[in-house]
Amino acid sequence: MLNTPYLLFLGDAPDPLSAKVAQGVKDWRPENCVGQFRQEGCNADMGLPDMTIQEAVDAGAKTLIVGVANRGGQISEGWSSAFEEALAAGMDIASGLHNLLTDNPKLVELADKHGQKLFDVRIPQVQFPIANGKKRTGKRCLAVGTDCSAGKMYTAMAMEKTMRERNMKATFRATGQTGILITGGGIPLDAVVADFMAGAVEWLTPDNDADHWDLIEGQGSLFHASYSGVTLALVHGGAPDALVLCHEPTRTHMRGLPDYELPSLELLRDTALTLARFVNPNCEVVGISVNTAALNDDEAVALLAQIEERMQLPCVDPFRHGADRLVDALS
Amino acid sequence: MLNTPYLLFLGDAPDPLSAKVAQGVKDWRPENCVGQFRQEGCNADMGLPDMTIQEAVDAGAKTLIVGVANRGGQISEGWSSAFEEALAAGMDIASGLHNLLTDNPKLVELADKHGQKLFDVRIPQVQFPIANGKKRTGKRCLAVGTDCSAGKMYTAMAMEKTMRERNMKATFRATGQTGILITGGGIPLDAVVADFMAGAVEWLTPDNDADHWDLIEGQGSLFHASYSGVTLALVHGGAPDALVLCHEPTRTHMRGLPDYELPSLELLRDTALTLARFVNPNCEVVGISVNTAALNDDEAVALLAQIEERMQLPCVDPFRHGADRLVDALS
Repeated sequence: MLNTPYLLFLGDAPDPLSAKVAQGVKDWRPENCVGQFRQEGCNADMGLPDMTIQEAVDAGAKTLIVGVANRGGQISEGWSSAFEEALAAGMDIASGLHNLLTDNPKLVELADKHGQKLFDVRIPQVQFPIANGKKRTGKRCLAVGTDCSAGKMYTAMAMEKTMRERNMKATFRATGQTGILITGGGIPLDAVVADFMAGAVEWLTPDNDADHWDLIEGQGSLFHASYSGVTLALVHGGAPDALVLCHEPTRTHMRGLPDYELPSLELLRDTALTLARFVNPNCEVVGISVNTAALNDDEAVALLAQIEERMQLPCVDPFRHGADRLVDALS
Repeated sequence: MLNTPYLLFLGDAPDPLSAKVAQGVKDWRPENCVGQFRQEGCNADMGLPDMTIQEAVDAGAKTLIVGVANRGGQISEGWSSAFEEALAAGMDIASGLHNLLTDNPKLVELADKHGQKLFDVRIPQVQFPIANGKKRTGKRCLAVGTDCSAGKMYTAMAMEKTMRERNMKATFRATGQTGILITGGGIPLDAVVADFMAGAVEWLTPDNDADHWDLIEGQGSLFHASYSGVTLALVHGGAPDALVLCHEPTRTHMRGLPDYELPSLELLRDTALTLARFVNPNCEVVGISVNTAALNDDEAVALLAQIEERMQLPCVDPFRHGADRLVDALS
């Protein structure tokens, strides 16, 4: 969908966190990045060569990726000039900002004039079908969480990386804007109209080689009151053969829902498996991915061992210890 | 949302089934109907006075309800002229057709000129919030099905009618186009963007008197591969105190999914209750509604008794025997 390679636009990112989209592209698709574009006041650095727009085009960059979140919901004058320069120099622009590129008449006009494309990855670009529930060839693994933002995208990306290192056939399937920008394709599932959610997931994970795995990025949680419907569409549209449970152990309540405790891993396992097996009777929970960022090394190892003993499943933090044991569990 | 009373537009309905929207309005809100408008070739009859547009306006009609499905996805010349006449005579028009009234320039122009409104009830009219999961006052009952089109709307409408007859505080809450046209308000949930589905259901069922019941129209099924996400948004956005299981006993596979058997009532009960209790720990399954239209009287009575014995819950066909026992079960 997006033309590679990329120039990562960091603009005047006030801190590294605001540039987490760029960081994701750099971490997971370094081969797609020719450089970074930074402006005065930028406090983020991907460690890539700093380039002007023209230098990037000369180096082969095809798309300017907006890798930074904007402040206050406005696209500043400084950003706009850079975007205009990129279009004029022959790059497409891709963005996951709430403010749409395609709502900016000047950018639309310039893109048209120079034959370049503007990709607002928050907006579905396809008229998805209604799901047909048909069995597809190939294998699928879906990450499901006890909560939102529990490490589902990271887990799927890490598994894909490990599988590719092992020369296994594996494709990360992005279902949110960050994943789309990182990999250059996918569906912004939370922006799809209700009737077509599961159909969009089927569209994203079509028939494939018998030994190919889709690593489907999860969204929300089956137990998150705001977003659970999106998650169930992933379970039924994805028809996974394997589920990985994702968990952040220090959270005191569901994200954005102060009155809700997290479901137990047992409840998540049983509920997700019941629902998934209705469309794919062979589905298994193969492992658990725990985000131990808030724990020290000893605490992390102890917690992982404790959960592994309790759940009788491989339990790892793929960021800390790699995704090998999760990949081993895909049989 | 819609101005009452209505003139029911039957057009040239080829048969009664094609006029099922009109039939629904007539069955459930007869007090809102001043008459029907039929054209040459019409083979449907609601038993209401036949009226011209002007006669209906003189009788007080405020909205022309398109109560018939169109053939081949086209709005015929005959229909258009009637719609134009209705606008000119001072009526709004409401429609659930795939072809939008608001996509017709002539109708838009006439509505504007005469100060009338065009309601395409398939299109959400509100910018819904993201669900906040907060506990609301008042009670809510949701119909959930083993499949789509299992009698969920009928069950909720029948319960509302019985409750009103008993002077209980009850409001049917429409979540689909037919229900919206019947009751004049609601949300077209299947057309809402994924992120806002549960928020739309919360919006539809706000704080209310402690002894007030919302009867929420169900959609899809937690086990229907195409639409389950919409159903889970209803379970979590609706936060029901009571669930009624709906079932059509003669179906050999899930609607539109020839490879899928229906889930058992036990599986539906356990799964729906697990998910619903996460947002409302007091939720109970109070009864079962079975659509016995395909059975004769003896068969129907026998089947209901058998399911009642098996599930240990009141089991009725509200169309055949009334909704009293379901209402009795709401405590």
